[in-house]
Amino acid sequence: MTTYNQVTEEIAQQIAGIVGGEHCAFADAVNEDYSHDEMPIYGTKMPELVVHPGCTEEVSAIMKLCYENDIPVTVRGAGTGLAGGSTPLFGGVVLCTMRMNKILAYDMKNFNVRIQPGVRLCELAADALEHNLMYPPDPGEKTGSVGGNVSTNAGGMKAVKYGTTRDYVLALTVVLPNGEILEIDKAVTKTSSGYSLLHLIVGSEGTLAVITELTMKLIPNPSEDISFLLPFDNIDAAITSVPAIKHAGLDPRSIEFMERDIVDSSADFTGSHFIPTVVDGQEVGAYILVTLDGNEEDEIMSRAEKLMEVADEHGAFDVLVMKDSDDKAAIWAARSAFLTCIEADTKYLDEMDVVVPVDKIAEFLEYVHEVGTEKGMRIRSFGHAGDGNLHIYCSSNNKTEEQFKTLSAEVMQASYDKCAELNGAVSGEHGIGHAKKTYLKESVGETAFGLMAAIKKVFDPKGILNPGKVCDER
Amino acid sequence: MTTYNQVTEEIAQQIAGIVGGEHCAFADAVNEDYSHDEMPIYGTKMPELVVHPGCTEEVSAIMKLCYENDIPVTVRGAGTGLAGGSTPLFGGVVLCTMRMNKILAYDMKNFNVRIQPGVRLCELAADALEHNLMYPPDPGEKTGSVGGNVSTNAGGMKAVKYGTTRDYVLALTVVLPNGEILEIDKAVTKTSSGYSLLHLIVGSEGTLAVITELTMKLIPNPSEDISFLLPFDNIDAAITSVPAIKHAGLDPRSIEFMERDIVDSSADFTGSHFIPTVVDGQEVGAYILVTLDGNEEDEIMSRAEKLMEVADEHGAFDVLVMKDSDDKAAIWAARSAFLTCIEADTKYLDEMDVVVPVDKIAEFLEYVHEVGTEKGMRIRSFGHAGDGNLHIYCSSNNKTEEQFKTLSAEVMQASYDKCAELNGAVSGEHGIGHAKKTYLKESVGETAFGLMAAIKKVFDPKGILNPGKVCDER
Repeated sequence: MTTYNQVTEEIAQQIAGIVGGEHCAFADAVNEDYSHDEMPIYGTKMPELVVHPGCTEEVSAIMKLCYENDIPVTVRGAGTGLAGGSTPLFGGVVLCTMRMNKILAYDMKNFNVRIQPGVRLCELAADALEHNLMYPPDPGEKTGSVGGNVSTNAGGMKAVKYGTTRDYVLALTVVLPNGEILEIDKAVTKTSSGYSLLHLIVGSEGTLAVITELTMKLIPNPSEDISFLLPFDNIDAAITSVPAIKHAGLDPRSIEFMERDIVDSSADFTGSHFIPTVVDGQEVGAYILVTLDGNEEDEIMSRAEKLMEVADEHGAFDVLVMKDSDDKAAIWAARSAFLTCIEADTKYLDEMDVVVPVDKIAEFLEYVHEVGTEKGMRIRSFGHAGDGNLHIYCSSNNKTEEQFKTLSAEVMQASYDKCAELNGAVSGEHGIGHAKKTYLKESVGETAFGLMAAIKKVFDPKGILNPGKVCDER
Repeated sequence: MTTYNQVTEEIAQQIAGIVGGEHCAFADAVNEDYSHDEMPIYGTKMPELVVHPGCTEEVSAIMKLCYENDIPVTVRGAGTGLAGGSTPLFGGVVLCTMRMNKILAYDMKNFNVRIQPGVRLCELAADALEHNLMYPPDPGEKTGSVGGNVSTNAGGMKAVKYGTTRDYVLALTVVLPNGEILEIDKAVTKTSSGYSLLHLIVGSEGTLAVITELTMKLIPNPSEDISFLLPFDNIDAAITSVPAIKHAGLDPRSIEFMERDIVDSSADFTGSHFIPTVVDGQEVGAYILVTLDGNEEDEIMSRAEKLMEVADEHGAFDVLVMKDSDDKAAIWAARSAFLTCIEADTKYLDEMDVVVPVDKIAEFLEYVHEVGTEKGMRIRSFGHAGDGNLHIYCSSNNKTEEQFKTLSAEVMQASYDKCAELNGAVSGEHGIGHAKKTYLKESVGETAFGLMAAIKKVFDPKGILNPGKVCDER
């Protein structure tokens, strides 16, 4: 196993020589932000140097230097990760891609766009829209970088209809740990040309190669979308409606669920009571939020009639139609603010984003709530009912960090065990980082974990790229 | 490098002991069919033994035995491949999956079906339909096995809207070369849980592991579909309409193209002149065939109005609407018969299934026709205009096998060079097998090819599984 070296003054100067001194911070000049992502509770570590390269060739030169000197390199995008993926566990260099933030070129005839990895999701989505095109992946965190989204195969709220980030990556330029530049795949939508290195890199959380350029697939933008809020008595009733909504052939873009508790918290936090908590005199226990899109409002509303029938059959109190852009903005803003409001409400926070079969969502949530109650931890959840991807948060203010961590670990272990029992996966879109490595190993087993570790070695024999993550037991 | 052993009488008896003697053929009892796929021109080789296991455990026992004895094993489905992928280049054992042909269980709430690998595409599609579900991948060859389809990431005619086989594989049970059974992924539609071993296996052409069970994603079946035939003066005009059709937001299921020559041949071969060759007094040079699907005929026809506008703007002579099931059956039968009619028409045949950017299709075809003319080879083509995946056939009756092979190799090399120049990929859906290994290496480069070979070694350190294929230079 490679013994890492530290970044010396001399190496720092060489890196500054590659990118320019203003794009490089060494030793005391390094900002504390680079020691963690959005979950510092999983551990923090200061890098010795942070570098902001501007192009593929600079990344290549940096990697070559670090490779030759056995210096660990951790790639970081916008730092919005939730699994500790960009925390430089072994110090060394943090290579931040956010200066590489250019949208390079649209190919309007072939429906794709070439970009640098530091373009933010919200920037790409907005820019594509100006070309009357849609970039469908839509994770809750809009300021994350597209490079980061690709590295975790981010999913989001439109995955029911449009799939996840993986489905929109056509070609990549990457830099291998030794500094070699590699073009992976062509900007075409179909291929059966050898093992898919592209699909290996997607979701590999910066452990196999540094992504420096991406060609992303785009689709014609549907001009209309309408959202529908279905209030139910309880989460079980809400979730039971989901397979029926899917069978009805409505082609929904999103099917989200929210528990009442998180809606209340969001209302307290934002001051907006847009989401009704009493409907027809009945207390709402859980919600399903459905969005249909298309090019004609009439056509969408004709599909919506079927949705209303299904909702009624499954005990929804009502179907609240949100056509106006103000209403849609309000409901989706409330939905997008959930994590922020949970974060604001607690000193310590832990989370999971498991995926379970859609018809097991309610059973899983009930179990986690029970465990939470037993351990004295507050559980709040929302997520993607259409694909079984749940965001579950464990928070508690009245405990010490030590107490919180111990109890949270117990809640997590019990929940991941239950998830395995229900044939679910450890992470739907946040990734493994270092926080979920043990759970991953338990979930996939020794053999699969060993294959992953061996693949890591193929790409990164010295283990200098983002060490300690995903399947690296260092 | 492992030196292979031959299958001895003793090992043959051990294999017969695993599966039962009736499911095993040894030495002279081996049928010649197992020495090649549908392209014997790429070379044939008799295996020493053919075995038809009935379940995962039998596959595991066979692999364990062959692994211990250094015997090469080539997995074969229905044998409908076009790149020599199931040809047992080094003899040994052919492991045929076609006895494992059961559809095991539908999960109607989670939209998936668990099957064995020897289920044929046409069987799965028909059976899903009886459950009012659709299995969208739709390669021209309907009798291929789903295991084979997954192994080549087969695409087909509905990929424009629905994607390729890769997009429908949720989970796999595989047997590793050493006999170990491995479950890969869970039957959920979203995951970010470590490197995607699943996406590595998909498209790996039986070189990394033996697929013994699959959980495939299904979708609600759209109840209606209507096809539209657009005749054009020439292929350039036809192809120019494709990006416009896509931009119009019609959500087409298929956008196919056909050259006039192949339509004439098909008419001669089948006796059916269903596809008109003169429209409004004008000779047709090329066709675009579009299918729209949905749940309401009216809604589809309202999208079709836009299609007609686009067709008109781009010089289509007319738009022939095919709503009746007879008409649709006739046009798609003609389309599906192209390969058969080309095969029937020539003694020797070579083919490529490159993918080029959609707007480069006409330029590429023109180039290949020129090269064909220069070399005295007949070129015929059809394919998937919506995704740039072209099926191009090189045929010639009046040449000796030797002459044909020499000239065809020249046409192929020139065409793959042109494909590279246009930023295209070697294969869209047929795979690499051994026939296209050199072209793959030229296309992806030494580094990517080397990474693939190293990944092969991770799964198959002895190199006993389907040796000599994809990236194995043995």
